[in-house]
Amino acid sequence: MQANEQRIEAHIENLRQFTATPGEGVTRLTYSVEDLKARNYIKEQMTAYGLTVSEDGFGNIFGKLNGMLEDAPSVLIGSHFDSVPNGGAYDGTAGVVVALEVAAMFQAQNLTPTYPLEVVAMIEEEGGRFQGGLMGSRAMLGVLSAEDFAAQTDVAGITTIEAMEAIGLNPLNAKPRPVETIKAFLELHIEQGPILEEKEISIGVVESIVGLCQLEVTIQGQAGHAGTTPMNRRKDALVAAAKIIAELPNIAVNESHHTVITTGRLQLYPNGANVIPEKVVFSVDIRSNEEVHVKNAVEQVKACILREHKNGISTNIAQLMYISPKELNHVIRDLFKQTSEKLAIPYCSMHSGAGHDAMVLSDFTASGMIFVPSKDGLSHCPEEYTKTEDFVKGTNILFEVTKQLTEAVEV
Amino acid sequence: MQANEQRIEAHIENLRQFTATPGEGVTRLTYSVEDLKARNYIKEQMTAYGLTVSEDGFGNIFGKLNGMLEDAPSVLIGSHFDSVPNGGAYDGTAGVVVALEVAAMFQAQNLTPTYPLEVVAMIEEEGGRFQGGLMGSRAMLGVLSAEDFAAQTDVAGITTIEAMEAIGLNPLNAKPRPVETIKAFLELHIEQGPILEEKEISIGVVESIVGLCQLEVTIQGQAGHAGTTPMNRRKDALVAAAKIIAELPNIAVNESHHTVITTGRLQLYPNGANVIPEKVVFSVDIRSNEEVHVKNAVEQVKACILREHKNGISTNIAQLMYISPKELNHVIRDLFKQTSEKLAIPYCSMHSGAGHDAMVLSDFTASGMIFVPSKDGLSHCPEEYTKTEDFVKGTNILFEVTKQLTEAVEV
Repeated sequence: MQANEQRIEAHIENLRQFTATPGEGVTRLTYSVEDLKARNYIKEQMTAYGLTVSEDGFGNIFGKLNGMLEDAPSVLIGSHFDSVPNGGAYDGTAGVVVALEVAAMFQAQNLTPTYPLEVVAMIEEEGGRFQGGLMGSRAMLGVLSAEDFAAQTDVAGITTIEAMEAIGLNPLNAKPRPVETIKAFLELHIEQGPILEEKEISIGVVESIVGLCQLEVTIQGQAGHAGTTPMNRRKDALVAAAKIIAELPNIAVNESHHTVITTGRLQLYPNGANVIPEKVVFSVDIRSNEEVHVKNAVEQVKACILREHKNGISTNIAQLMYISPKELNHVIRDLFKQTSEKLAIPYCSMHSGAGHDAMVLSDFTASGMIFVPSKDGLSHCPEEYTKTEDFVKGTNILFEVTKQLTEAVEV
Repeated sequence: MQANEQRIEAHIENLRQFTATPGEGVTRLTYSVEDLKARNYIKEQMTAYGLTVSEDGFGNIFGKLNGMLEDAPSVLIGSHFDSVPNGGAYDGTAGVVVALEVAAMFQAQNLTPTYPLEVVAMIEEEGGRFQGGLMGSRAMLGVLSAEDFAAQTDVAGITTIEAMEAIGLNPLNAKPRPVETIKAFLELHIEQGPILEEKEISIGVVESIVGLCQLEVTIQGQAGHAGTTPMNRRKDALVAAAKIIAELPNIAVNESHHTVITTGRLQLYPNGANVIPEKVVFSVDIRSNEEVHVKNAVEQVKACILREHKNGISTNIAQLMYISPKELNHVIRDLFKQTSEKLAIPYCSMHSGAGHDAMVLSDFTASGMIFVPSKDGLSHCPEEYTKTEDFVKGTNILFEVTKQLTEAVEV
């Protein structure tokens, strides 16, 4: 049984259209109109492939194929379907598409698994609308409490609850899913880096996922007229922020060559050309492969920020998320490798520099991931691209491993 | 004849209400709903004080009191009525209010001047919505051509013409005003600095206005995933921008103690926490009291920006505006000083660190300015404040000088 190339391509191309920025990449923020359109599309496909559709109180989508065992835990396969602003058509979405294709293959073969199979499409992995990222998986497993979920607002001040209701979702059942209902979690994702392409290998079996810490930094100064306030009387929030941001790459490089630090989001207030900036709020994303490097880098970033806390400038640091590096399940890693060998698809072992929903799931259930190549290593941009033939290979492996896990294999 | 304290206060308080950010200062962007409300209010007052109202093709408002001489040039008094985002209730608006009060005093005394008197309320001095600032006066005098005016867009891509039409203004007559129709221009403005308050003097007679250069800098890098792109492969537009912005204060301080450099506006693309910034666009506002300092500072800022043009980062610098320092009219300066002495109101001579519409007008007609104190030297923020008694003193002087200029005095 082979995955269907045309079907995978069609789903990716159809979902690519649900973007707020046509011609400028995919912008599909959680609970947006584009989310609603993609959501309806995914639910239609789930139904067409014989799955029973449901949504939890956070907007995560599930399509379930019942197993022979009643009340048995499910094997979840899937990924997230939100995007960064002006991102690509593959990050997350491709993992949902290949999971749908696995369901289509189960249907085509008229397979009834022993354990239930669930295709899952999760919200807000990217943190493009609300804070912190990985929100769908964190909320689903109670790492993010229902109260903290409800308290989240986007930059326009709209709460998660208001945003859900705006697209007709029901936030009343915002409760975590019992861990006992999950047997395992499998995620296929694009690599988002250059390694597989350079090695000319289609499949990366992920051994571990990077640890990450997300900070939100607020620099508070004082507004004033750009022409009449002498330089030595200024409390310019942006100049202080700029000194910090310019220093971050040095902290990363000095820590280790697997450590990366990024400021990707920054907002200036009041943001007028002739007004001295009163306030700057910016993100700092710190990642490394070993916990000691993550922790060291966080401490150094905090010290760097505190050095600007002087001369009328005050600084505040909120830690939005801390996730330690995660090792993925050994049994599933071995299943992926054995299946690749059986299907004669070359693979290599890999470390993931990106955070994924699987890193949240791995604290609760046996979790595994495979990567497929990213053209030029690019991701989070319109140029993001993966060949369909690589998805076909990944789906074939995913199908076989899913079959085994929904049968007797213990993990 | 004394200016009416209650009337001045009422006009300032009423106009303060026309803000897009109630409770967070005055945000009255040009051609916004708040502009329309303020515009209607100003036109009503002009009519009530016996002035004939008209608007030019750019949305500047004029209220004319005919003089005895037919077709004679007018003495213009006034300022602008737009604000910066989250600014104060006095910057610009106070100059319109006291000009209205001068018209009210003419009406109360039933004065008919020899030369016409025109109260003027100009648009977009701040550059809060469109680029470059001083747009009302520059367009009125043809420094900004009608074509360049029409080509301007705001951050949402809305053109001046579309924005005018949205509030019912007629952009068809977008032609400069013949210089021969203007005899002189008088502007009262808040100081926006600490000097008058520290000296405990109510009136500053402005001798000269700062020269200024506004640049718009674009840093182009490449987007990428914040977790999977090693530090040494990044083309991070924000890190490059931060290095530049952190260096600007040093350039200003090294040039002269009257030189100031500010980045007040900055926009990041795509602005997602886990995406390496692809592009940053920011303003650089450079001012000094002597032309040599302005020019030196501009060259050093450009060199600083060009030093970041490397390693896959490209930089572009657009010069949005250059205005050399301006000396104001000697005759009018002397009239202001003599009148202050006659009315026993202490004054001092001053230099203006802020740009004003008078600096545009001064290239075409005899122009003069007086300043009144700003509490704590603050401006462009909600805390902006000037005592009504200072406005009364300023209005009394403005009324006397306007009377003299609308009579025979040659300037």
